[in-house]
Amino acid sequence: MTMNWEALYSERLGSMTTSVIREILKVAQSPEVISLSGGWPEADLFPTEQLQEVAAHVMRETPREALQYGLTDGSIGLRQLLAEQMQAQGVPAGPENILITSGSQQALDLLGRILLDEGDCVIVEAPTFLGAVQSFKAYGPRFVPLPLDGDGACVELLPELISRHKPKLMYLLPTFHNPAGVCLSLERRRRAVEIASEMGVPIVEDDPYGQLRYSGEPLPTLAALDSARCSAHGPRLGNTVIYLSTFSKTLTPGLRVAWAVAPVDVVQQLVMAKQGADLMTSSLSQEIAAEFIRRGWLPGQVARIRDTYRLRRDAMCAAIDDFFPSEASYYRPEGGLFLWVTLPEGLDATALLAEAAVHQVAYVPGQPFFVDGRGTNTLRMSFASVPPETIREGVRRVGEVFKAHL
Amino acid sequence: MTMNWEALYSERLGSMTTSVIREILKVAQSPEVISLSGGWPEADLFPTEQLQEVAAHVMRETPREALQYGLTDGSIGLRQLLAEQMQAQGVPAGPENILITSGSQQALDLLGRILLDEGDCVIVEAPTFLGAVQSFKAYGPRFVPLPLDGDGACVELLPELISRHKPKLMYLLPTFHNPAGVCLSLERRRRAVEIASEMGVPIVEDDPYGQLRYSGEPLPTLAALDSARCSAHGPRLGNTVIYLSTFSKTLTPGLRVAWAVAPVDVVQQLVMAKQGADLMTSSLSQEIAAEFIRRGWLPGQVARIRDTYRLRRDAMCAAIDDFFPSEASYYRPEGGLFLWVTLPEGLDATALLAEAAVHQVAYVPGQPFFVDGRGTNTLRMSFASVPPETIREGVRRVGEVFKAHL
Repeated sequence: MTMNWEALYSERLGSMTTSVIREILKVAQSPEVISLSGGWPEADLFPTEQLQEVAAHVMRETPREALQYGLTDGSIGLRQLLAEQMQAQGVPAGPENILITSGSQQALDLLGRILLDEGDCVIVEAPTFLGAVQSFKAYGPRFVPLPLDGDGACVELLPELISRHKPKLMYLLPTFHNPAGVCLSLERRRRAVEIASEMGVPIVEDDPYGQLRYSGEPLPTLAALDSARCSAHGPRLGNTVIYLSTFSKTLTPGLRVAWAVAPVDVVQQLVMAKQGADLMTSSLSQEIAAEFIRRGWLPGQVARIRDTYRLRRDAMCAAIDDFFPSEASYYRPEGGLFLWVTLPEGLDATALLAEAAVHQVAYVPGQPFFVDGRGTNTLRMSFASVPPETIREGVRRVGEVFKAHL
Repeated sequence: MTMNWEALYSERLGSMTTSVIREILKVAQSPEVISLSGGWPEADLFPTEQLQEVAAHVMRETPREALQYGLTDGSIGLRQLLAEQMQAQGVPAGPENILITSGSQQALDLLGRILLDEGDCVIVEAPTFLGAVQSFKAYGPRFVPLPLDGDGACVELLPELISRHKPKLMYLLPTFHNPAGVCLSLERRRRAVEIASEMGVPIVEDDPYGQLRYSGEPLPTLAALDSARCSAHGPRLGNTVIYLSTFSKTLTPGLRVAWAVAPVDVVQQLVMAKQGADLMTSSLSQEIAAEFIRRGWLPGQVARIRDTYRLRRDAMCAAIDDFFPSEASYYRPEGGLFLWVTLPEGLDATALLAEAAVHQVAYVPGQPFFVDGRGTNTLRMSFASVPPETIREGVRRVGEVFKAHL
């Protein structure tokens, strides 16, 4: 008898999907193609020499911490350092509020696992980060889209959406949105936290890019605003926002070290879920990240990244102004890796991707980022991993393709 | 309004449990306590200098491979090396049959995700590895116990169990069982693969300890026997067994690098599940493991571990013979980290643990390893992470406690 695997697969497999972006990335990996499609940071900016030094140090000085099994919550040293960092950002967390995860992707999976039953509702921005949808989908929720404009998510619509759909959580990417590149305004941030708290629906604030601001004034995170609301009688961690961040965009993605900040009870549930998921995050990676912070090298590293990406963002904006049809509009991002373009109605960015590929340039069509199937005339371009002159040439080619179809 | 997290948690949270062993380990971490309870390898055996060299090498020579995002399947270089290793063990796998996972714990989680729906049946040995039960539990299955004796699982019972319960998979630990220390006999291995194949129920073969044999003759893995059955007309990977192994016990656990070997279609489903779970395993860890293999250092490292653990196993067996009540029986393990003791009926190993703790020694009661609540008079002791003279003293103390209650 031949094993009939098809008959054995779980029902949830039907709702899981492989990322469309991932398939496009495969094509874009050809060296002749100018890829504006990736979400990868610039590898030339990785602090490889510092990382070598730090890796050797932790294996030599603290081999047990760096190489043995450790706590599922994460290294206490790293959690202490991250707690201090969070405190400096107005989030009075202790190490007991922090869970180290294997990338933020894992945090999303674990949150889905502890919060979502089949049919539960999740509010996500439209567009939203595909990876989050992918993680949550394993738990069978319904997604309700929250529209987004140049000031971020239209949070004024939340009370009605919450009343109607009774969501288990809201997933928001308020700072340098992926894919939309926009920032949630201060006023809307305040309102979002207020509504969430008053209506009893937690916000998952995904903040992988917060450190990468190239212009404009820093804004408080939702987590900081949540804590501020609770701190009338001294610093106290808020109870409404679960905050996620990562070393993937500041240090390197290959370490797979990220963290979640949450009330103690939620952290404990996440720890239990993580025990079954991967037991613990690489202790070597954790110790490397901790030692990198301890040496005070992170701010310099972030500054180097900012300087490089700022020039690339500027190059992309200038090239769009020069080469895209004037009917196209975009948000000028103040940080992050991504820029979002809306084409005139009737142009289909997915259909035109094949033509772009013929001209050896790749972008990401916007439609897959919408849970409601809208956005055929939108696209995402990344300026992070390509030098300015290549960005200009890539944008020129994309612009030609679009112009030819007007 | 205060966030009511309790009301938000998913239903599956109720069936998830934190590991009892983990709680005991916390107590046993006090330095005065002789811990025979852990499943941790001996940290003094970690090849820290070689790992330092290899880590510096991969970051210097191939920084992109070691630090950038990579494929969800895992590094192609590492998968190629592992495929060759599997081939040498009679499992004709190609890199496309291999998925790199963040520890074998993740492989178990991903297998649960792609195979198990609420209420599905899983056959596990009694006793079985707690971590597997923990991973699977997130997907709501029923467990059916398969008894085990000195020759491993009583596979002759499988046809009836399969007919009655229609399981989705069988989870077996045939080589140096955790917790029972036993090996499945060759005859039973053949029979298990035969039954699985004929009745169309896949076997998940968990093999973290296979390299750690201290005496006796090596046995083929179930994966090798499965492939042999399919290879009448040339080498072909079997279709019935999913094989799991890891670097945690041979290299170091802190890297979190393990692998699954499976038919291509199953690997593809696992990759899709892994995208949502953690996107990819640490590329730094993967490149370190690959370079360690490439340099030919793994066999020497495994030999060093074997020599040390063999002496410790011998010390533990001798101490039990000398100090345990004669009514206690145990299986002399030919490899692995664990030894399993059955006490006379009426002695409760869980109840006596507190008394052992007073005498500053810790073991793991056997009952939590049984999905059917049996095993109150059993316990697991590990000989891996304690030197021989300490093992002897620890076993003496445990023996005193048991004798006092006869």
